[in-house]
Amino acid sequence: MKNENEELQRILNEVIEQIRPDEEERKRVKAITELIIARINKRAAEMGIEAHAISVGSTARNTWIRGEADIDIFIMFPVDMPEEELKEKGLALAKSIADRYEERYASHPYIHAYFSDAKGRRQHEADLVPCFSVKDASLLKSAVDRTPFHNHYIMKRMAGLEDDVLLLKQFMKYLGIYGSEQRRKGFAGYLCELLILKYSSFVALLRNASQWSYGERIDLEGRGTYEAEGTEPLIVIDPVDPRRNVAAAVSAYSFCRLIDAARDFLAKPSKEFFVPRKEPPLSEAEFKQRVEARGTEFVMVLFDAPDVVEDILFPQLRKAEASVTTLIERHGFKVYRSDVSVEGAKAFLLFELLVWRLPRIKKHEGPPVTAKYYSEQFKSKYSTSPLFIENDRYVAEVERKYTDVISLLKNELRTCSLGKNVAESIERGYEVLRTEDIPFFGDLGSFFQEYFRGIYAPREQIPRSQRT
Amino acid sequence: MKNENEELQRILNEVIEQIRPDEEERKRVKAITELIIARINKRAAEMGIEAHAISVGSTARNTWIRGEADIDIFIMFPVDMPEEELKEKGLALAKSIADRYEERYASHPYIHAYFSDAKGRRQHEADLVPCFSVKDASLLKSAVDRTPFHNHYIMKRMAGLEDDVLLLKQFMKYLGIYGSEQRRKGFAGYLCELLILKYSSFVALLRNASQWSYGERIDLEGRGTYEAEGTEPLIVIDPVDPRRNVAAAVSAYSFCRLIDAARDFLAKPSKEFFVPRKEPPLSEAEFKQRVEARGTEFVMVLFDAPDVVEDILFPQLRKAEASVTTLIERHGFKVYRSDVSVEGAKAFLLFELLVWRLPRIKKHEGPPVTAKYYSEQFKSKYSTSPLFIENDRYVAEVERKYTDVISLLKNELRTCSLGKNVAESIERGYEVLRTEDIPFFGDLGSFFQEYFRGIYAPREQIPRSQRT
Repeated sequence: MKNENEELQRILNEVIEQIRPDEEERKRVKAITELIIARINKRAAEMGIEAHAISVGSTARNTWIRGEADIDIFIMFPVDMPEEELKEKGLALAKSIADRYEERYASHPYIHAYFSDAKGRRQHEADLVPCFSVKDASLLKSAVDRTPFHNHYIMKRMAGLEDDVLLLKQFMKYLGIYGSEQRRKGFAGYLCELLILKYSSFVALLRNASQWSYGERIDLEGRGTYEAEGTEPLIVIDPVDPRRNVAAAVSAYSFCRLIDAARDFLAKPSKEFFVPRKEPPLSEAEFKQRVEARGTEFVMVLFDAPDVVEDILFPQLRKAEASVTTLIERHGFKVYRSDVSVEGAKAFLLFELLVWRLPRIKKHEGPPVTAKYYSEQFKSKYSTSPLFIENDRYVAEVERKYTDVISLLKNELRTCSLGKNVAESIERGYEVLRTEDIPFFGDLGSFFQEYFRGIYAPREQIPRSQRT
Repeated sequence: MKNENEELQRILNEVIEQIRPDEEERKRVKAITELIIARINKRAAEMGIEAHAISVGSTARNTWIRGEADIDIFIMFPVDMPEEELKEKGLALAKSIADRYEERYASHPYIHAYFSDAKGRRQHEADLVPCFSVKDASLLKSAVDRTPFHNHYIMKRMAGLEDDVLLLKQFMKYLGIYGSEQRRKGFAGYLCELLILKYSSFVALLRNASQWSYGERIDLEGRGTYEAEGTEPLIVIDPVDPRRNVAAAVSAYSFCRLIDAARDFLAKPSKEFFVPRKEPPLSEAEFKQRVEARGTEFVMVLFDAPDVVEDILFPQLRKAEASVTTLIERHGFKVYRSDVSVEGAKAFLLFELLVWRLPRIKKHEGPPVTAKYYSEQFKSKYSTSPLFIENDRYVAEVERKYTDVISLLKNELRTCSLGKNVAESIERGYEVLRTEDIPFFGDLGSFFQEYFRGIYAPREQIPRSQRT
């Protein structure tokens, strides 16, 4: 047991050495952060604005992974300022101190700014976000107002746990479940920090996660008033806002993926769990060879990616995927798996099919023969079709409208629930491509590499030759 | 309305003239029946057996269709005679008066006898059935003892309704639902007579049948104690045995078929409803052309017909059909329709398929990821398969054992519930044939003609060109 623990500790130490920012990086991030804050506060005073800047997020808490510092600066405005004024003054202030900037929008507008450091040698980026300085997180005027409270809560408690947070973040990156954005539906940085606070270490978290139940509830302060709807796999009460589930974005997949990997890692710890996999993308020839061996057919619905952010686009793509799957199966075909993605300027829905062609005839079920009125209507409507009685109902043998999935999708795709922006793009035009016609644009080779791979234990555990 | 009724009556009269036995046939049947009865009674007296013969069934009641007289003679024995003795003496008596005979067996043994008539010009056949002369139908010792009571009940009430019974029987023959044997599961002659007694005429019966509900209950004497199990489409209480449903053998199909045809006939009366259809059998080339146009695949399981009567064989074939359908669909294929039959020395199960080939891969669903123990078992069992998480469960991608129905049936047919005699025959060997290999033995051409046709209105109503 001691040896095992020593081996585990050795692995974690090695990983930490690789992912923890070195002294130089920390100093650099600290310097640029302080520079930005100083500039904002100075300019606010000059402009006569009652506002001050604070550093939040992983760079404020020393929980960023080496080389991936995202500097987040919040500019705190008095809570009694009108929202319009905050937006106007906040953005103007942020723009005025940046060397260069882009105006961006998540749930609220913010400035993505570029800075040279004090010595002008190196360029840094930072997000500058105006918000209200509310007294209590329960009084917030918008979602961003909560962030300073998160920051305060974590900073007071995180000292000494930073390495464990780094391990957890890196572990989740390897699994592809780090980040709460809609494309991924994984674990946000703040959620990772709360999990480490709860269980005190990375390994203790994994031990607990490997035993989690669906709907697991974690309430650090024991004050949660959030009521689960029964569909969330994980509930983590926000310590600064007990009505809120910090893990609301975590999908069943992300939840299960963490549990699965936690068990695998604990059973056989390895550095491999922290190295994002970089397998070479599939070539077009490899893809077609793979499909040939599977015996399935791929059908891709390809269209121009709507000009909206991914957090807007991906829920629509998932909705379209579900709706089109229903359409396909309602017509008697059979979907094996499906996925969606965006590659460059193109978005697509992808369906892998077990059944993609069907005979010309099909049954159309009618009313029970004993239902006289409906029977007469049915028989008159299908007077030219062969009729059968099956069990106690009429069945008409009719011609199948679509004998293959391609013609179905070419004709009926627009009848699906696609989401507003996706529907608009589809309306302007789309292609329906079968396996042999799928073009390998963008990084489709990596997409398919991952698609076929699924989840699996790290390379060390299963020899490549045994995998299919 | 009057004109319509006149037209209807004209049609029925024409049919009656064609199906009612003429005077010569009646006299002949009466003469031979009396001859047989006289012989039996005389011989019984000679043998010192206390028994007497009676005429039962359609020839006793004048409800047989021209040229189809089945003479049924029951030999009534004292109820206190031991069953063995009845069988022995009854059969010996029957054999001794026949010119030639075969011993047959339904639920009880009986003699199928051949006679020349008094003038020796013509050969007649008759079934001679020994039974007990019980006092009351509720005291019967075997099912055949009930028949004399049926006979008595009908003969007392049938006078003047014979033509309506003939019309109903002929109508049902046209529909293929006359006869209670297992192959057909239709309406027995006695049931036809009860229905005419109930509604007083053929047309009144049709008017009522066209409004029947599923589970329709008819109780002429209002003394029925039979309790429906909820699955029988029609319940007709036996007037001589109120615990019994005379319509127990009527399938949902036969029930619905009568209702459907009743409506069609009343809507547009025609002699066509009484002419058993004789379309030319499909040729092998026509069959294959038809299948090509449908786009389906036929698979036939062909084996030696077990040497048992059809009433034993057909329930087993239907059981096998259902069980094999389940097998096929459990493996991901899709059955469109199926049927069974016997042609000469061969029996077969026939499946028409919408999906008969599938890709090499398939999903094998595992436990919820949160179920730690089962998850570990599953992952260890499928350690060489690509694994996925779908919803909250593991899914392994495995090789499909059977990628086509033929190989499935060649390997797994014996695992199905086939019925004793069918299973034994299958055990000795069977063939699994796809469309192109199906041999056109026996009257398979007529079988397929009917298979494709389904139910439909008589030719007069739908021009051939409109049918598909």
